[in-house]
Amino acid sequence: MPAVHSFPIRVYYEDTDAGGIMYHASHVRFLERGRTEFLRDLGIQHTALMDRDPRATFLFIVRRMEIDYLKPARLDDLLTVTTELVELGAASLQLKQTLLRGEDIICRGLLTIAAVGPDGRPKRLSNDLRVKFAP
Amino acid sequence: MPAVHSFPIRVYYEDTDAGGIMYHASHVRFLERGRTEFLRDLGIQHTALMDRDPRATFLFIVRRMEIDYLKPARLDDLLTVTTELVELGAASLQLKQTLLRGEDIICRGLLTIAAVGPDGRPKRLSNDLRVKFAP
Amino acid sequence: MPAVHSFPIRVYYEDTDAGGIMYHASHVRFLERGRTEFLRDLGIQHTALMDRDPRATFLFIVRRMEIDYLKPARLDDLLTVTTELVELGAASLQLKQTLLRGEDIICRGLLTIAAVGPDGRPKRLSNDLRVKFAP
Amino acid sequence: MPAVHSFPIRVYYEDTDAGGIMYHASHVRFLERGRTEFLRDLGIQHTALMDRDPRATFLFIVRRMEIDYLKPARLDDLLTVTTELVELGAASLQLKQTLLRGEDIICRGLLTIAAVGPDGRPKRLSNDLRVKFAP
Repeated sequence: MPAVHSFPIRVYYEDTDAGGIMYHASHVRFLERGRTEFLRDLGIQHTALMDRDPRATFLFIVRRMEIDYLKPARLDDLLTVTTELVELGAASLQLKQTLLRGEDIICRGLLTIAAVGPDGRPKRLSNDLRVKFAP
Repeated sequence: MPAVHSFPIRVYYEDTDAGGIMYHASHVRFLERGRTEFLRDLGIQHTALMDRDPRATFLFIVRRMEIDYLKPARLDDLLTVTTELVELGAASLQLKQTLLRGEDIICRGLLTIAAVGPDGRPKRLSNDLRVKFAP
Repeated sequence: MPAVHSFPIRVYYEDTDAGGIMYHASHVRFLERGRTEFLRDLGIQHTALMDRDPRATFLFIVRRMEIDYLKPARLDDLLTVTTELVELGAASLQLKQTLLRGEDIICRGLLTIAAVGPDGRPKRLSNDLRVKFAP
Repeated sequence: MPAVHSFPIRVYYEDTDAGGIMYHASHVRFLERGRTEFLRDLGIQHTALMDRDPRATFLFIVRRMEIDYLKPARLDDLLTVTTELVELGAASLQLKQTLLRGEDIICRGLLTIAAVGPDGRPKRLSNDLRVKFAP
């Protein structure tokens, strides 16, 4: 896998607001789609993680997020979300993400994702997962 | 409880789209909030139904919905959602709902809600629930 | 263009709810994405319609929608939305849409879409648009 | 107005996801509702700002947001969103916000909001607005 994962996303009416531009929580949803596809391309699928034996279950939840909104996105725009792993902790990931329209940066995000068990408590990433992130 | 339940809902940016009016799926979310409050006022709370013994668990899911959109709603509008039980079946409810701005009807909906168990299969309403709907 | 337009859509966390399945308003958003892509493939783009001379501006708004929910969709599902024009009126369209997971029908919708001008009033489809729908 | 504005928000199915908890973009929507009500209580209403003479039009857009997610919120929870002005710039606001369930902090946010004109460019807050923020 290349160091920076990228995934295309189209802006629909549902993503915009009466200000005429993309609603600022839509960026958050789009970054999550990008992370999900980043994980899927590593062979990690949310439902597979949930359906297994509870001892093996991981959920990835957002612990912290910083987003800088640089330019508005608009209805019908075709955007790209990029995802890059910047740090792999014992029970967490730090990811750098951007939303782009061509060369224009729509927003930039830095996200801390925690791995938790079915009880919601932090859970050390299994070796199985760890090698997927850092082969 | 009066025959027609009513509940106020404010329109925020998140509910609108770049057409300048309320996005048509927001009406669907608003009707669901109205139904949830209708149920809550009858003493039926979603989480309470889910947290119990699985034998006693009910989920209410939408089986069919007809919505007529009559007038646009807009940012900052204060709307009212009304909910009225029109039929109580063995494992389903039929509800008539409207979204109003003062006297103006924004939309009118007719919804069929099914009671299902944790396995997703239709499940006859318990007497306990039945008396709440039809005291 | 084939008689039935089809478009793939992935189910993300944002589309699901605590019942463990796809939230019923997400189907509504997905059908709208399908209609937007159906229009785009006919050479009709929302923003292009809005950016023109107001005399030439059209917005497509939902006037009525009937949806039958047949099977639950789930996180990570890859669905297909199909869109088929069933009637072309003077200032409206009627569309049949389905959401599918392979052969399984998740939901079926019948939607009446009105063409309106910038003032929100019904507006006869231009010949330019009309030939795109019915070449 | 008290230094810290507070506003109640209920968690509905639409706000949750298949992980069984509140979806992380819902917090973002809830903070926006809190800001809108904070502004409304100061006598500032989005639509009023947009409907006026374009020379007098202001839109408030999110420039930067930092959110720390501390505890999960769940279906049926009744939350409180608090909003506090921490800095009033020439064409921007900095706000501290929290989402609470009783004493529990669900998330904490620090948001930079820019005032822009109809063209999307930064626009110095009018004296009229300025005195509403800092009487």
